[in-house]
Amino acid sequence: LTTLFLKSTMLKRDFLFVDLRAGGGGRGIRISLDVGGEGLLNDMDPRAYHYIKRNILVNKLEGRLEAYNQEANTLLNMLVLSGITLDYVDVDPYGSPIPYIDSVFKPLCKKAYIGITATDLAPLSCTHPRKTLVRYWNKCIRVDFEKEYALRLLIASTAMRAAALGFAVTPLLSTVYKHYARIFIESERSYNRAFRVINECVGYIWYCTDTLERGYTRDPYDTPNCTSGKRPIVLGKTWICSITVPDTVSRVLLEAEKTGFLRLETLKILEKLRDEVSINTPYIRLDKLCSVLKVNMPKIDLLVSKLRELGFQATKTHMDVRGLKTNAPFEELARVIYELAKR
Amino acid sequence: LTTLFLKSTMLKRDFLFVDLRAGGGGRGIRISLDVGGEGLLNDMDPRAYHYIKRNILVNKLEGRLEAYNQEANTLLNMLVLSGITLDYVDVDPYGSPIPYIDSVFKPLCKKAYIGITATDLAPLSCTHPRKTLVRYWNKCIRVDFEKEYALRLLIASTAMRAAALGFAVTPLLSTVYKHYARIFIESERSYNRAFRVINECVGYIWYCTDTLERGYTRDPYDTPNCTSGKRPIVLGKTWICSITVPDTVSRVLLEAEKTGFLRLETLKILEKLRDEVSINTPYIRLDKLCSVLKVNMPKIDLLVSKLRELGFQATKTHMDVRGLKTNAPFEELARVIYELAKR
Repeated sequence: LTTLFLKSTMLKRDFLFVDLRAGGGGRGIRISLDVGGEGLLNDMDPRAYHYIKRNILVNKLEGRLEAYNQEANTLLNMLVLSGITLDYVDVDPYGSPIPYIDSVFKPLCKKAYIGITATDLAPLSCTHPRKTLVRYWNKCIRVDFEKEYALRLLIASTAMRAAALGFAVTPLLSTVYKHYARIFIESERSYNRAFRVINECVGYIWYCTDTLERGYTRDPYDTPNCTSGKRPIVLGKTWICSITVPDTVSRVLLEAEKTGFLRLETLKILEKLRDEVSINTPYIRLDKLCSVLKVNMPKIDLLVSKLRELGFQATKTHMDVRGLKTNAPFEELARVIYELAKR
Repeated sequence: LTTLFLKSTMLKRDFLFVDLRAGGGGRGIRISLDVGGEGLLNDMDPRAYHYIKRNILVNKLEGRLEAYNQEANTLLNMLVLSGITLDYVDVDPYGSPIPYIDSVFKPLCKKAYIGITATDLAPLSCTHPRKTLVRYWNKCIRVDFEKEYALRLLIASTAMRAAALGFAVTPLLSTVYKHYARIFIESERSYNRAFRVINECVGYIWYCTDTLERGYTRDPYDTPNCTSGKRPIVLGKTWICSITVPDTVSRVLLEAEKTGFLRLETLKILEKLRDEVSINTPYIRLDKLCSVLKVNMPKIDLLVSKLRELGFQATKTHMDVRGLKTNAPFEELARVIYELAKR
């Protein structure tokens, strides 16, 4: 996915990248072979460093790749002083990327890209609420769109940390796959844009635990009531703007189709992503919704095409097989499900 | 103040400290001469580095102090790998300490101390609300206790960043003087304590812009109404626990009295601090309150002694000459002011 993303997004061929936790160096070498650019492949582990060096030699990339054996934050902060600026940084740690986020932005050039992997889905999706509070500063509850909540929380956290250092971020491509989240973001060194991003895109999700209604709000005190009459729960701060740019997905798909040896799964994810990308509302889990509505669950494909017939956007999501993304109002959605269940 | 703090707080004599932005090295040399310990004095500027080396030689501290010429974050992250753990770190940058906070905690030992200076009082006290949002993530308004707001925001921000890395903080001594804030905090490597700190002490201040009533709340939806009937504004997240520990102030004052050559001003601040430390409510600016109450301003000393006669705690604050700290309920305070104004 990383090479596809860089191929379709990186405009210049002589870019400079860093793979912070390179392991054996596989990803960096793929980037260099498939996309181009020069790179620093870093790993703190001396054994990994040994393999990185060997793999660079094996692939004859000595002129373009350099192996480093540094603590990740140290390397990035050393680069700040060196005056070298980076076009792409890959952050793929064990667990949370939080300990690296603040160092990642400082050595970036005016406009750059970052790929971040997070394997701490449990705190991100509120499975461990105490850990969520400590690491991501949110008091939260379990929701039915937990995978999307994880992505949005990771993006908001990254955006806030970036803004404090004077950088504005735009999420270009966000995915969850199995136990990890991976996001690609564009970063721009601009105090004014950083303000606009934080002001517009870092907000709250209101959520009704009884009816599963949900929506975004920038003012946590301004939420509608649930149809049950209860007050909704307010979650956040989290990311409320789009988490993927349609144009990026199209271009990545185009690159993917050119590539023969891709895993089928990657293609499938990208195709689902293309469909869901224009709908910003968090997905709703159909099984949970049907249990709230007390009806049998209709076939999700049937529901999607029915909603589309009625003129709404509707699609499945790559994040959860039981998830439905739609811009249909809640009452309409419920009405269609009742109708399908009656048949 | 730093040497007094360390003298009274640091229990062992063979502690290790880092002065991150040491300038000419004055503070580090004073610590070493007056308190003891071994230290790394660091400055990114090669000229500063030159002076640090010279001053170490002049003071014959070659055995105990070492000069470094590194970017501050790089130095701290290098120490993480080295296995050396620090007992005290001094962070005294130009402007905001935010770019350094995340690196400061990682090389600390189980229990350590940090001294932080912030000269960005304008965003901290909401004079530039856009900058406050970008750097400290708070949507805020100007309040009459702006200096205390600045301290609390700086502490909350530090505590949240520390918690994300698994550290719990306790503010021991917090002061504002002229255009800068200085806080001394204790840090402990403990995930559970970090959770407790964030859960209990990072909350919200509710504030009535028309009547100047204020108070703390952990639940932003649970605030009383203003006596005017309006809903108060909710500020935060910010620090709502105590910002200074009485015991620390007493011990620092004891050290201060032993020292002959202290500036009178430092002593005065410490004495005021001793009086105000037990009152956690933010100070109220008497001039603004009297203009809301539409009465002439009484002498603040008179008001203080009157409130004390009535059995309340009341004191002036070192943060603002017009500021009053009291635990008297708002109606009582207003009643006493009216009474004094009538005479």
